[in-house]
Amino acid sequence: MRYKCTCSYDGSLFHGFQIQKDLRTVQEEIENVLLIINKKKTIIYPSGRTDTGVHALNQVFHFNSDITMEEESMRNAINSRLPRDIYIRKVEKVSDNFHARYDVLSKEYHYLIDFGTYDPLQRNYRYYFSYRNFNMEDFKQALLLFKGEHDFRSFTKNQSLSNTVRTIYAIDFEQENSLLRIKIVGNGFMHNMVRILVAMALEVGKGKISLADIKSITAQKNRRLSPKIVPPSGLYLVSVNYKE
Amino acid sequence: MRYKCTCSYDGSLFHGFQIQKDLRTVQEEIENVLLIINKKKTIIYPSGRTDTGVHALNQVFHFNSDITMEEESMRNAINSRLPRDIYIRKVEKVSDNFHARYDVLSKEYHYLIDFGTYDPLQRNYRYYFSYRNFNMEDFKQALLLFKGEHDFRSFTKNQSLSNTVRTIYAIDFEQENSLLRIKIVGNGFMHNMVRILVAMALEVGKGKISLADIKSITAQKNRRLSPKIVPPSGLYLVSVNYKE
Repeated sequence: MRYKCTCSYDGSLFHGFQIQKDLRTVQEEIENVLLIINKKKTIIYPSGRTDTGVHALNQVFHFNSDITMEEESMRNAINSRLPRDIYIRKVEKVSDNFHARYDVLSKEYHYLIDFGTYDPLQRNYRYYFSYRNFNMEDFKQALLLFKGEHDFRSFTKNQSLSNTVRTIYAIDFEQENSLLRIKIVGNGFMHNMVRILVAMALEVGKGKISLADIKSITAQKNRRLSPKIVPPSGLYLVSVNYKE
Repeated sequence: MRYKCTCSYDGSLFHGFQIQKDLRTVQEEIENVLLIINKKKTIIYPSGRTDTGVHALNQVFHFNSDITMEEESMRNAINSRLPRDIYIRKVEKVSDNFHARYDVLSKEYHYLIDFGTYDPLQRNYRYYFSYRNFNMEDFKQALLLFKGEHDFRSFTKNQSLSNTVRTIYAIDFEQENSLLRIKIVGNGFMHNMVRILVAMALEVGKGKISLADIKSITAQKNRRLSPKIVPPSGLYLVSVNYKE
């Protein structure tokens, strides 16, 4: 029996999703619980990893189990044993053909930048940024240059990938007082890619580089040209979309 | 020179405001910083304590210093040395007559109850509560019984106080989707008082006790009749008001 799970987690106290020796990870916490429920080691397969400090509102993973349980019972069985910073929102029984990573059509990430007064209660949940004479329009224009299909080799930490072409379907902005929410939907995102794209667009907003520089950096496919990155605290994996 | 400071803190990782041996407290963190700035031990005097896990948006304290600094310079000097879960919003030079505790006219606390789906990212910032057939109107009516001047002896942990009469000036409710924000303004609040009042009103909403029981418990001035308390995660000290 294969189960598909949709979960939320607060990334603040995790060293990312993927299991690592001697470090607290989301995968380890969930697999510890499934070991109890399934009475044997159970590996989970996520839609993709998230880094240390990055949050998820609707991360998806699947696992196989010999145990047959109602979806709601399985959800409760897992949630009752999980630490309070992970929560399973939904459990669905799926066919053995479903794969949480290979079947992804698109993902949506949000990045939250607060241009206002620092609030210690939000320190792990947004990026506080301030800069004198910051040009918000230039910043947004720079980010919008990334819409469409591009080779994003200049904007990922993972340089060993053979295919670094990705498509960004949409980039939208929502402003509420001092908080800017950047919504990015794409067919796939490489390691650190969203955080590097936002950081490089901020450089344009600061006036350090131009829109033409962004185009040139993209064309040169060289990571050394985009050395900036924004903190993980502002990044949320909001949804993972599959073919029906 | 006396300085009045208004600060925010995330209570999640503090054992309350007041200094305690071997435990992390807000007072200790701030006094550690003032020791560096003033080059001698400096005691801070808050408007009152907050408990473990309770947050503050605008807590007020004062301290004396031989150092004369511009208000903004003092603010920056302190903030640059504080941990990220405390932040000084404002520094004002005040007369030696000002006292952060004795001069309080009123305080406003908010308590946040979420009746909806658990969100792990908000676990330290609201109280997740659900109960089948909960009567919201009865709950609100019960809480409103506490408006005005009453002897709140039945509703505080501190039974050694001689005077347990306090006045609650206002209780208001703001609902946003599944989140209820309870706003309470009063001339003073005793230890655990807000959290006990909310907890006992929830018992009325559950139908466990009646509005008449609330009146009777108040009249009997006996803490054993109000054994419930809600978690600190939902409680915020929002403002402290002084005579001008």
